[in-house]
Amino acid sequence: MTRRTVFFISDQTGVTAETLGHSLLTQFEGSEYDSVTLPFLDTVDKIDEALKLINDRAAEEGLGPIIFSTLVQDNLRKQFKPKAGVLIDLFNTFLPALEKELHAKSSHKSGRAHGLVDTIRYDQRIEATNFALKNDDGSRTQDYSRADIILVGVSRSGKTPTCLYLALTYGVYAANYPLSDDELETGVLPAALLENMDKVYGLTIEAGRLRQIRHQRRSTGRYATMQQVSFEVRAAEAMFARYKIRFIDTTKSSIEELASTILANTGVERRIKP
Amino acid sequence: MTRRTVFFISDQTGVTAETLGHSLLTQFEGSEYDSVTLPFLDTVDKIDEALKLINDRAAEEGLGPIIFSTLVQDNLRKQFKPKAGVLIDLFNTFLPALEKELHAKSSHKSGRAHGLVDTIRYDQRIEATNFALKNDDGSRTQDYSRADIILVGVSRSGKTPTCLYLALTYGVYAANYPLSDDELETGVLPAALLENMDKVYGLTIEAGRLRQIRHQRRSTGRYATMQQVSFEVRAAEAMFARYKIRFIDTTKSSIEELASTILANTGVERRIKP
Repeated sequence: MTRRTVFFISDQTGVTAETLGHSLLTQFEGSEYDSVTLPFLDTVDKIDEALKLINDRAAEEGLGPIIFSTLVQDNLRKQFKPKAGVLIDLFNTFLPALEKELHAKSSHKSGRAHGLVDTIRYDQRIEATNFALKNDDGSRTQDYSRADIILVGVSRSGKTPTCLYLALTYGVYAANYPLSDDELETGVLPAALLENMDKVYGLTIEAGRLRQIRHQRRSTGRYATMQQVSFEVRAAEAMFARYKIRFIDTTKSSIEELASTILANTGVERRIKP
Repeated sequence: MTRRTVFFISDQTGVTAETLGHSLLTQFEGSEYDSVTLPFLDTVDKIDEALKLINDRAAEEGLGPIIFSTLVQDNLRKQFKPKAGVLIDLFNTFLPALEKELHAKSSHKSGRAHGLVDTIRYDQRIEATNFALKNDDGSRTQDYSRADIILVGVSRSGKTPTCLYLALTYGVYAANYPLSDDELETGVLPAALLENMDKVYGLTIEAGRLRQIRHQRRSTGRYATMQQVSFEVRAAEAMFARYKIRFIDTTKSSIEELASTILANTGVERRIKP
């Protein structure tokens, strides 16, 4: 398959067009694309510019472009007629079926999905993000009673980004606690965790991958040796088994996948619904 | 319009189904829905359970359910036949057109979009997130040379969540610096910012909304008074004008919208492409 450019077109942020396109294109294995996002195309002039860019690129490549569009305003969508390629148009395709089922007309106005002014939703994300920041890396444990979930694992097993993603995306209060050498050696969890065992969820990772991640950050010292990471991973998994802590392997998962798997496995309720 | 349940169905995380559905439903103003996400439906048994849940709910409500599906495995998709309602099926709808244009067959295998093992991508997100955490809230300024962008604004104007979102979603290195009372009074930026003016981007917010946000966190003291927030917002905007700093008003924007607007306005390149 020849390399060609994929365009994500929107009169808003382009986030939905990218998500849609990424999901579809990952179904074509081994393909690679250059991707260009053209967001905020909210005037006739901007659509004209975008069309010129797309048509020029198609002429250069000798291949029709692949275009994912979430243009919602009728006039813009009608104007957007690329000369070649395939146009995957979210709203054109699906709004008619929804209008019929809902017995309602859609607004065809942009600025709804991600620009929605929703103060409560915003506040919940911010509060959850602040909670994750304050309760990162075991820095304090006195607020664990307010946590929805407490992620536990060795250093660099993925706790912090997973907590931040849970907060920003789902409004979930996620703390994290790194297992210290001392705890790994004795195999005993601290009181702060023992008092909140229903919220504790483990992260593990393959030793080789952990060594690589640690190596990228600090090239010398025991911290990134194979011996040390192997000990830590084995000891952490032994603790999960002894305390019957549910856990997930982060080695081959994206942050999105970790976050939604943890929610699905624990039944923790999101504060922010789609 | 009667309230009814919206289902997001996936053999993976459900993130794409939710994004797709949310964008489409926000086109129907004034509608409210209960939403249920059923992720990881990757076996025939799980599909059966989901179908029972959906059909039961539809019978209770007396209305067909609205279902957004990103089931990708053929056997599961064929099995998933709800009794009523509307089924918005991402892959069924769009894969044929893409297969034709790409002259390739799609894999019809799940586990691609968000479970994609992509170590480089993961590392970039983590590095960017660590950068945002270390350079949050003006805690240090010596790494500004490595920043892609430095967000500047008064306390609680939205800097931290925007930086974290830029890091997690786009792999962008985003620092943030809160303007102190002293800086707001003198109107002079610190040297660390003056040396990096090409990276500085301002956030502002309506005084009333800022007062509300601050009030939720600390109910007493000058910090959350209307007089103080009005002074800070006016002084910050005056600084933006004097130094010709581009800025955005965070009052009515979601975090997604802030992040993509900032990227579009600055031309900062993402490290993570869709």
